[in-house]
Amino acid sequence: MRLSLLVLLMSLLFASLGVAEPSAQLNLMPMPATVRTGSGQLLIDSSFSVGISGSSDGRLHRSVERFLADLRRQLAMPPQSMKVVDTSQAVLAVHADRASKEVQELGEDESYTLEVSSSQAQLNARTTLGVMRGLQTFLLLVQTTPTGFAVPSVVIRDKPRFPWRGLMIDVSRHFIPIEVLKRNLDGMAAVKLNVFHWHLSDDQGFRVESKKFPKLQEMGSDGLFYTQEEVHDLITYAADRGIRVVPEFDVPGHSTAWFVGYPELASGPGPYQIERRWGVFNPAMDPTQERTYKFLDEFISEIAKLFPDRYFHIGGDEVNGKQWEANPKIQEFMNAHGLKTNQDLQTYFNTRIHRIVSKHGKIMIGWDEVLSPDLPKDTVVQSWRGQASLAQAAKQGYHGLLSAGYYLDLMWPASQHYAVDPMSDAAASLAAASLTEDEKQRILGGEACMWSEYVSPDSIDSRIWPRMAAVAERLWSPQNVTDVKSMHERLDQTGHALEWLGLTHNASYAPMLRRIAGGDDSSALRVLADVAEPVKDYTREEIATVPATSLTPLNRLVDAVRPESATARHFGEMVDALLSGRADNSTRERTRTLLTRWRDNQAKLQPLAERAFLLKEVVLLSQNLSELGATGLEALDYLDRGTPTPDSWKVERLAVIDQAEKPQAQLLLTITSSVRKLVQASAGRTASPQAK
Amino acid sequence: MRLSLLVLLMSLLFASLGVAEPSAQLNLMPMPATVRTGSGQLLIDSSFSVGISGSSDGRLHRSVERFLADLRRQLAMPPQSMKVVDTSQAVLAVHADRASKEVQELGEDESYTLEVSSSQAQLNARTTLGVMRGLQTFLLLVQTTPTGFAVPSVVIRDKPRFPWRGLMIDVSRHFIPIEVLKRNLDGMAAVKLNVFHWHLSDDQGFRVESKKFPKLQEMGSDGLFYTQEEVHDLITYAADRGIRVVPEFDVPGHSTAWFVGYPELASGPGPYQIERRWGVFNPAMDPTQERTYKFLDEFISEIAKLFPDRYFHIGGDEVNGKQWEANPKIQEFMNAHGLKTNQDLQTYFNTRIHRIVSKHGKIMIGWDEVLSPDLPKDTVVQSWRGQASLAQAAKQGYHGLLSAGYYLDLMWPASQHYAVDPMSDAAASLAAASLTEDEKQRILGGEACMWSEYVSPDSIDSRIWPRMAAVAERLWSPQNVTDVKSMHERLDQTGHALEWLGLTHNASYAPMLRRIAGGDDSSALRVLADVAEPVKDYTREEIATVPATSLTPLNRLVDAVRPESATARHFGEMVDALLSGRADNSTRERTRTLLTRWRDNQAKLQPLAERAFLLKEVVLLSQNLSELGATGLEALDYLDRGTPTPDSWKVERLAVIDQAEKPQAQLLLTITSSVRKLVQASAGRTASPQAK
Repeated sequence: MRLSLLVLLMSLLFASLGVAEPSAQLNLMPMPATVRTGSGQLLIDSSFSVGISGSSDGRLHRSVERFLADLRRQLAMPPQSMKVVDTSQAVLAVHADRASKEVQELGEDESYTLEVSSSQAQLNARTTLGVMRGLQTFLLLVQTTPTGFAVPSVVIRDKPRFPWRGLMIDVSRHFIPIEVLKRNLDGMAAVKLNVFHWHLSDDQGFRVESKKFPKLQEMGSDGLFYTQEEVHDLITYAADRGIRVVPEFDVPGHSTAWFVGYPELASGPGPYQIERRWGVFNPAMDPTQERTYKFLDEFISEIAKLFPDRYFHIGGDEVNGKQWEANPKIQEFMNAHGLKTNQDLQTYFNTRIHRIVSKHGKIMIGWDEVLSPDLPKDTVVQSWRGQASLAQAAKQGYHGLLSAGYYLDLMWPASQHYAVDPMSDAAASLAAASLTEDEKQRILGGEACMWSEYVSPDSIDSRIWPRMAAVAERLWSPQNVTDVKSMHERLDQTGHALEWLGLTHNASYAPMLRRIAGGDDSSALRVLADVAEPVKDYTREEIATVPATSLTPLNRLVDAVRPESATARHFGEMVDALLSGRADNSTRERTRTLLTRWRDNQAKLQPLAERAFLLKEVVLLSQNLSELGATGLEALDYLDRGTPTPDSWKVERLAVIDQAEKPQAQLLLTITSSVRKLVQASAGRTASPQAK
Repeated sequence: MRLSLLVLLMSLLFASLGVAEPSAQLNLMPMPATVRTGSGQLLIDSSFSVGISGSSDGRLHRSVERFLADLRRQLAMPPQSMKVVDTSQAVLAVHADRASKEVQELGEDESYTLEVSSSQAQLNARTTLGVMRGLQTFLLLVQTTPTGFAVPSVVIRDKPRFPWRGLMIDVSRHFIPIEVLKRNLDGMAAVKLNVFHWHLSDDQGFRVESKKFPKLQEMGSDGLFYTQEEVHDLITYAADRGIRVVPEFDVPGHSTAWFVGYPELASGPGPYQIERRWGVFNPAMDPTQERTYKFLDEFISEIAKLFPDRYFHIGGDEVNGKQWEANPKIQEFMNAHGLKTNQDLQTYFNTRIHRIVSKHGKIMIGWDEVLSPDLPKDTVVQSWRGQASLAQAAKQGYHGLLSAGYYLDLMWPASQHYAVDPMSDAAASLAAASLTEDEKQRILGGEACMWSEYVSPDSIDSRIWPRMAAVAERLWSPQNVTDVKSMHERLDQTGHALEWLGLTHNASYAPMLRRIAGGDDSSALRVLADVAEPVKDYTREEIATVPATSLTPLNRLVDAVRPESATARHFGEMVDALLSGRADNSTRERTRTLLTRWRDNQAKLQPLAERAFLLKEVVLLSQNLSELGATGLEALDYLDRGTPTPDSWKVERLAVIDQAEKPQAQLLLTITSSVRKLVQASAGRTASPQAK
């Protein structure tokens, strides 16, 4: 009797959640490796305090102070409250066995244990990095409850699945100011990412000050570059957040901006200008001249000191070889050295540059294309092609990172990125399945990529967040954390929590819409914008009537709307519930309200569009939305009445839907598929499952 | 015939607007002295450029570069576009006859002329300051049109009515970080304000680093102070925007924070602690000891160098004299020197401190209370008591500033501040009317005051903006610019334009509501918040059950809602239109929609309130809103049916309205008066003027 009571108490106290069944209550992202919730909660008020024991390096102290500042801001506590105190009096006791490395290394221990009871909390980690990760978990655990702000009783044991969890930002195609990068580093730290991959040069701009070769930034950047002091400051900022900074200087292609100041590096005759267009261009470094390697040696010598991280990214992607083919001297060199293809020539270049990078103490990374039989085995391959390519590299002895499937500029919904796992994929399953444990270890993790053809400082946050958090979970959490519904719920919450860091993914929406609508009330535009998404993949480029350049203003509706429409997603869920008979009256009512609003919106938007030039291009989209609203309502009427729809009606309505499915002004109405379901259902059945 | 055609053409070309009839088209705030609109417009695209001729000081160049950056951000133009070019090729030609003074002085010329045609624009000014003001006008003129962004053809001749147009921010009661001050300086520049009055010390904190007396900040600030380097940086930032920085160190009262480190300055025995409460407290400097003046002499010597402005504010307000009365030595001193009252003793102190301030090259400012017969005539009096007090000071030969009527912390609607004129007021009309021209010249202008008992860095922008712009217009524009409807329209637009500067008055609203609602959908809370306003004047303090302190979290609904509810204002306009027979069907429909939403909102809010502690206190408010919605709908029904309301119904409903008028959780439902009008009308008439 006593025993069973104890068991009962224990099971009340700690309901094990396991990893595959995360608690809907806990807004944690990424989901920790193990979470066990207890009963009771720790109230968080202005008397909250932190004590520090064990290792006590400056970085740890700054992390705790930053954590307290974040907590104060989130809860609106005064700056005089929530202090670091002696451990014996602390509400949260923090302990790290040792400081993490001065220059953060790949694979350092990031694990931590967080135990919260109703009276106190304990965060233990092996290193400072583990403390940083645990503090972020604690922040996300703070909830509003009936009695106050509180953290639920919980035991969390956590560690990352992959040691390399990154975000790449391309600052070449559009320059991104330091303060924008800093707030994104704050966001990265919040979701436990640990690598900022800085794509610093490309055809459209060379973005770092070189003191040895000043014409790089003076002539190759339009004055839009980071000083070495700013770079140093950003690296320190990142290091304080447990984030490594890996620079990329893309060679031998994607390098037009270098040639504006130093045309002698190129394989074709100059002069060169900064490239304004998007795409793959001909200019490439001349791999056959010694002066190229001398230049790169001196350049990397300078830059290797500026960036303390062990890894150095040389790009290496998308060389079309046209300048090589057109240059007789290069062709002669290839013949003389038995280099049969452009790929052979690039391998020669890679081998040379690998030697330079190694000489300066760095490990080389390159995109997929660098992979060739002669490539030294310590090179890391970053795959934009897919898991098969990655598995193949691992089999050959290379370390690898996955970026295919994590391109944020392709405007995929979060769930699509979330489904991509570095270790598995239909196409790669054969390769991955046959990897040995050692080979699997070579897959270091992944990086989301924010290529910047269509992002500005105004919009970049909304392209990265909150979807980045879904990728961060894929790279941190156990492989079996795959519940999409749970992910969506937590992502919405995480997105809001990230706003306290100054990220503008939500705040910039209304001003951008008002810019389009002009001085007028923009509510009709908002109704349209809420269900519109940018076209996916590379469609924006493919269907552009006038190709965009780096000088094109990014002030269209396609630049303001979110990559994924929450309204459309929720509408889809409502329609699914309705058609499967699970919908309650409130859902039925809300479905009608939305459809009615869409139907009637065009009448409100039209007068605005006559006054505001940026609205003209979305009138057709708005008309389509209106048609979809009307169609959905008619379908609901048929379903409710239980009368079969006339065939002519169905044919006509499906044609309308087909029309509405086409992009307009680079935008998609992502409610279209749900309205199609309604039409199909109303035609396919004679009565609604819910009809009264 | 020819002549009349010419006259006709001229009148088409330039329709004189005059000052009393501002164009609804032009979103200018403050309204310029004269505006003449023409026909046509100047398109603003990425080829826009500025040329500079005449004086060409660094401050002017930086102003132009900042103007271009603001313009690019507002229109989403790339950073490579919109450059400074040779004047001969410029779209906007800027000319200043001379640089403004290195240290900006009171009364420097700020006038400018802006002429815009369909092909180019010309901005002429006597000084750099005039150029800064004109560039802000140009920014506000940029509109969205059917053909692109454009500035309408216009001739503007503009100059300020008053030379002193300020904003005071109290950083003592709540510390406001430098970056928050900077974005507010940007906002000030946008509405042509020219004085930032920095209230740097008070009972609750001493906020500037003193190197001579470091215990001031070390013991008197909780570590929340500005370094001298930060102060210097902020002054430079302000100077670049044509804003003077006037420091205030409040003495001899409001000075508890000084005494924590230097108790020997006080009139009573120590020790002292930083004051956490709000109000008027006993501690005051000892005016009878020479060491007090020696300290102040050395302190002002140091601080006078840090702040280059000619003016120095010594506070001087609200000394309750209790420490003086309790100190026998002070009483003895008063007897010995024939000082009969505490006021006499303070006058003695003021005379001494005036001598010190003058010795260090500064002109002294003080609040109303410093005014006494012996006060030297070069003192400036800042009036928190009203225009009568100000006129009296002017008559006595003092210069004066009005702040009464401009206290932003009292949560008045913009129109109430807007109605306050430094030169006229019912109570002061006699005094003002009898002022000579010379005496009128002594009224230098005014300052809005942001006392910070109830503002944090999160909320301060929403307490200052956009209402500050209405005060700015009062101080800049001609006295007869008083059309409240026009002001409201332009204020809404100006408020949105200010968002591009990084001000968070709109952006912080949703996150603050979500903090209150917790993780749940906060839309029901938003419906309530949209019609709630904080209680006015000092009611928050008067009706508090537990007095607030500087340690009280500012996370309640009263901290999140706006000082003035736009929804309530628009609802009031709709009800007025309805009851006067001017309402169209759409207005009638929207009125019903709003009332229905309010009636039904309590059912949605109640479940949230059960889960979120910060919501519990607003349940009664929400119930009242629900009752008001139901009452309004019933009144509309009676009006529409044309049946007289039963007396019992009217009595009962008016009691409900009386109840709803009382503050709940420090909040008011400002729709109450409009609902009362509906009830009165439905009882007073037998048929609606619009009933079909």
